[in-house]
Order: sequence, then C-alpha cells, then structure tokens
Amino acid sequence: MYTLFHHPMYAGSRMVRLMLGEYGIEAQFHEEPVWERREPFLDVNPAATLPVMAHFENPIIGAQVCVEYLEEVEGSKGSAPRLFPEDALTRAEMRRLIDWMLLKLETEVLRYIVRERVIKRLVPESQGGGPPDSQALRAARTNIRYHLDYTDWLAGTRNWMAGDTLSCADLAAAASLSVLDYLGEIRWEDHAALKEWYARMKSRPAFRALLADRLRGIPPVSHYVDLDF
Amino acid sequence: MYTLFHHPMYAGSRMVRLMLGEYGIEAQFHEEPVWERREPFLDVNPAATLPVMAHFENPIIGAQVCVEYLEEVEGSKGSAPRLFPEDALTRAEMRRLIDWMLLKLETEVLRYIVRERVIKRLVPESQGGGPPDSQALRAARTNIRYHLDYTDWLAGTRNWMAGDTLSCADLAAAASLSVLDYLGEIRWEDHAALKEWYARMKSRPAFRALLADRLRGIPPVSHYVDLDF
Repeated sequence: MYTLFHHPMYAGSRMVRLMLGEYGIEAQFHEEPVWERREPFLDVNPAATLPVMAHFENPIIGAQVCVEYLEEVEGSKGSAPRLFPEDALTRAEMRRLIDWMLLKLETEVLRYIVRERVIKRLVPESQGGGPPDSQALRAARTNIRYHLDYTDWLAGTRNWMAGDTLSCADLAAAASLSVLDYLGEIRWEDHAALKEWYARMKSRPAFRALLADRLRGIPPVSHYVDLDF
Repeated sequence: MYTLFHHPMYAGSRMVRLMLGEYGIEAQFHEEPVWERREPFLDVNPAATLPVMAHFENPIIGAQVCVEYLEEVEGSKGSAPRLFPEDALTRAEMRRLIDWMLLKLETEVLRYIVRERVIKRLVPESQGGGPPDSQALRAARTNIRYHLDYTDWLAGTRNWMAGDTLSCADLAAAASLSVLDYLGEIRWEDHAALKEWYARMKSRPAFRALLADRLRGIPPVSHYVDLDF
C-alpha cells in the first residue's frame, strides 16, 4: 500500500505519480502545502521537500529515492513494464538526466516560476505572498530557453531521452515540462522534436492524472490537456 | 579502467574516491578546475559539475550517478565489500542521506565556504577572485550548526549513518565533513557522537588518500590528518 504526499506544481511529485501510473500501482494521494512547514510533515522529512512516499507507513523521501525504491521493489515484478534501461551505462545516462530535470532545471527555472506565479498567490502577504517579482520571472524565463534547446536536442537525436527505450528519464523530463506547460511557459512551435516527444508522453495512460490537475484560481493554458496541441 | 575528474574541495568527488577506495579499485585521477569551464570538459558534462568518472572512456556524470554505477558494476562482484544495505527501505534511507550530504549540505554550507575560502583565492580578480565575503561566510557557518547537530544525532542513535552497517551514506557524510574539517570549520568537541563516528571513518584505509590532499597555499588545520584528533 502506497501513499504519496505531493503537490501538483512540484516536478518531483509528478515524476513519482507518473512512475506509479506506469507500474499500474494504486496509491493514495495527499496534497501537502510544503511551504507551510507543518510540524507532522517536518517530523517525517526535516528537509521539508516533496514528494514523500509511504510504503506501509515506511517513509521514502525525495523523488530520486522513490524512483530507485519503486524500481527495486516493484520493477523486479514480472508484470511491471521496464523503466530502467538494461545496460548500466544507459542507466547512468538516465540518472544524469533525472538529476538534470529534477535538480538543475528545478534550481534554474522551476523554483522561480512556481514561487512567483503560484505559491505567492497561495500564501498570505505576511508569509511572502503577493504579486510576482518580474525580475525573478525574467531570469527564469531566460534560463528556460537553454533547457528547452538542450531537451529538444536530446529529443531530436534519440528515440527517448536516455536512449532507445522509454525510461525514467522521460518521466522526469515530462514531469518537469508539464509544470511549465500548465503555466503556459513553453513555446512548443520553436521546439519541433521536443513537441513530438511530449505528444507521445502526453498520450500515455499514466499521464492522464497529471492532465486532470487543477490549481484553484490558476487554470492551465488551453492546450495543456490537448493531445494534439 | 576508471578515471576520475575531481577536485579535493568538492564533497561529491571525495565520496566517489572513498567508494573506489573501499572497493579497492585502481583509478587514474585528474584534478579539474571546474570554475574555469574548460570547453573539452563542458563537452562531456554540460552541467559543469564534478565529479565525472570515465569507465573505458564512457562518461558517468555526477556523484550519485557514479555511486549507483559502481554499486551495479563493481558491487555485484563477490570480492567487493557491501556498501549498499540489504533491505530496500534502508537503501532508501541511505540514498536520502547521500542527497542530504551532497545536495542539501552542499547548497546550504559547502558551496559558500569553499567559494569564499578556496576558489576566490585560486581565480583572478577579473573572474570573481578576491577576499572572502564575510556575510556569506557567516550565513554558511550559521547553517553548519544545524547540519552538525543533525548528523551528530544520527551518529548518536545509530551504529552507522543509515543503520546497522557501514554504507554509502557514511562515505557521503565523511566526504562532506572532511572538506569542512580540512578548513577547520568543525568544532568536534561540541559533537561527541559525530566525532567518535568520524574517527572510525578516518581510520579506514580508503580515507588515507583524502588525508593526503593538500591545496597550494591553503594547508589543512593541524588535526586534519590526526587519527586521534
């Protein structure tokens, strides 16, 4: 029995939801407003990060840690689709890209976009809420271009992000880009190979739950749910 | 045949050196001045981070990625000592702590201490060199206390960082703390359990190479090499 403490605007949370979906694992989901730093949550995860997964009440903390755990515990079952490449070097490439998406893209882009456009609308002014800082947004949007160019290059030179087969690198990239796409931050027409790859990802059954995400007061852009965007 | 591109003041580099040492793997080592952003290095690792390991010329990028690769490729050999716990939940705890040491402690403490005290002395003023920013140092030193208290608590309640047996979590913690210790940033007398654990780590044969590290113009504090500090 799995439970996931998550938030729809955190790429790491989305990554684990996609992996659970690909494995066909039923789980319970709880949205955790991590910026409130609730005591019972901090007792479980003093780093105050998302996601936190519970497997029969045992906490597994952090997206990459959840990915490795799910692969070890569920991926070895005969019924599970293969999300880790067979070859150790390709697994290393997959892990490099997961870190790229969930750490580098997070630190250089997502953190700012999500804080300025989402979290500042959810928290009271006394806790840092208010209108977005246009300078922070501008810096993050400058960084987006580099990341989209790089991801577009990967999508244009490989079948899937880490190589010939679908892997957790694709789930991590789709998780991250889907947060930006919800908020209308991606100009798909400038990145044809990436768009074609994202259309494939978006049409996977595991992706449906992400496309159903809605933030109160912040609806997604119209093409967010469109499979033919 | 392994080659490691590393720097003695980067905890992730030290972590991989310790793991190679524990496995008894002979490797070639190259110090990479990553702040110079050398083109041939960026071609291999566009994220411009250390370490980068090469296994027969195949690059494996990032400390955690190297750890998983070495465990998969070398850890499965009968002769290798076990550095991953047997139980999946304890492996998750190990990975949580590796991320804590190599990402959280890095972001909140090491990055600032190393930049202000080491890198600013190594690069010309035109590239950001110069005297340390005392405000940045003060902020990092405030954060050290919290991390040492937490690590001391772990050392006091468990045999080893992640549980009953030595694991890569211990290597990650020792790698990170050894950078701070080189620079004299740790008051061991305030953290008895951590000190006792660090003495055990320091006396391991794999640690010797780290204790031999010397930065030009920045010698370690006198107790750095002392096994009975």
